[in-house]
Amino acid sequence: MEGAQAVREAQRHGRVREVFVTEAAATRHPDLLGPAPAWITERAAASLSDTVTPQGIFAVCDLLDVRLALALAGAPQLVAVCVGVADPGNAGTVVRVADAAGADAVVLAGDTVDPHNGKAVRASTGSLFHLPIARERDTAAALEACRVAGLTTLVADAHGELDLHDPAVATVLAGPVAWIFGGEAHGVPATVAEGADHRVRVPIHGRAESLNLATAAAVCLYASVGARRIRSRPDE
Amino acid sequence: MEGAQAVREAQRHGRVREVFVTEAAATRHPDLLGPAPAWITERAAASLSDTVTPQGIFAVCDLLDVRLALALAGAPQLVAVCVGVADPGNAGTVVRVADAAGADAVVLAGDTVDPHNGKAVRASTGSLFHLPIARERDTAAALEACRVAGLTTLVADAHGELDLHDPAVATVLAGPVAWIFGGEAHGVPATVAEGADHRVRVPIHGRAESLNLATAAAVCLYASVGARRIRSRPDE
Repeated sequence: MEGAQAVREAQRHGRVREVFVTEAAATRHPDLLGPAPAWITERAAASLSDTVTPQGIFAVCDLLDVRLALALAGAPQLVAVCVGVADPGNAGTVVRVADAAGADAVVLAGDTVDPHNGKAVRASTGSLFHLPIARERDTAAALEACRVAGLTTLVADAHGELDLHDPAVATVLAGPVAWIFGGEAHGVPATVAEGADHRVRVPIHGRAESLNLATAAAVCLYASVGARRIRSRPDE
Repeated sequence: MEGAQAVREAQRHGRVREVFVTEAAATRHPDLLGPAPAWITERAAASLSDTVTPQGIFAVCDLLDVRLALALAGAPQLVAVCVGVADPGNAGTVVRVADAAGADAVVLAGDTVDPHNGKAVRASTGSLFHLPIARERDTAAALEACRVAGLTTLVADAHGELDLHDPAVATVLAGPVAWIFGGEAHGVPATVAEGADHRVRVPIHGRAESLNLATAAAVCLYASVGARRIRSRPDE
């Protein structure tokens, strides 16, 4: 983990094994040093860092991901699945959005980036520690596990047969669902999309060709959250 | 403009004055050269570019922004306002989301980044050309112009008094609204937020502290789009 925010989150969740810090960073973040920090030079910090202006504080942490069966245990209601998402910033942002929406887990399937990637960690702003993250190379197995967990599988697809804002679709959105998001370049592979329960499109009203991954994920996950709120409203 | 996608959009909208291109890029994009391209070397391309791997094609274009009064003319129904958004990628993504949601205009207010910034142009993936963009340094004047145009001003605010998913709020969301978004570090300035008609929070159900700017904008703008769809549904 790199940077004060990531190290703080890792410590809060008891995942830190060892902290490496420069003298300057230790002065700025005395609360993050733990019992026995390892002191490093600015030069070492620059070498450890993958940012242009390193913050000078790093932590070696336990791995974050859990087994798929564990991530999907306990009757999940909302799960986000990334399939073949190569960009770590995008993957981290989807984790952040999933956390905000109250998702029960995030599954990183197929060729999706490693969640321990520094950019993914930073983009998640701590959310990687907040909900279970599972990795599964076999995308079909990931979707099958979602179904076994009682989730309806919905692929976010610009050409999906269901319209996210169609009032008739709200019932589907409000149930237990796994939302499946693909990488920005190619979306969800056709074989995966065909195997899902539904393909849902975010309606495009202007002349944009599409939304980017993180914004599409935000709209879809929050559509489920909103649909539940309406469904749970007592009869008037 | 830099890159094939941006140059193509600029040409499609008749905004290109002159194209600069390397031989290699001209072979890849013969459709983008226009009547009289200026030939440049790879070294010149690297020097013009603000990317690590330049695509070798550039265009000098007309400025994009229009007067605020023009952007807000004609009874707008949905407008996105950025206040003090410094990051060009964020600003460009908000323009892309606003376009996708069918917004009538985007207003860049206060210290918001120049929309002609290369990163903003790329992040908008052409959407900067699709809807009117206006700049207004005086944020209070920008909000007043929105009100005069008949728009209810809604500030996206993590501590807002209205909950985006409260069914009672849907009526507000479905009307003509200007959504106001602040920069990621500090949000919308308090004086601006207090002067708006309402402050609306995106409910956070997990342990994330917040959404990032672009995902929050996507959820808010699409909440308005969805609320209109429900309102316009014929009585059953």
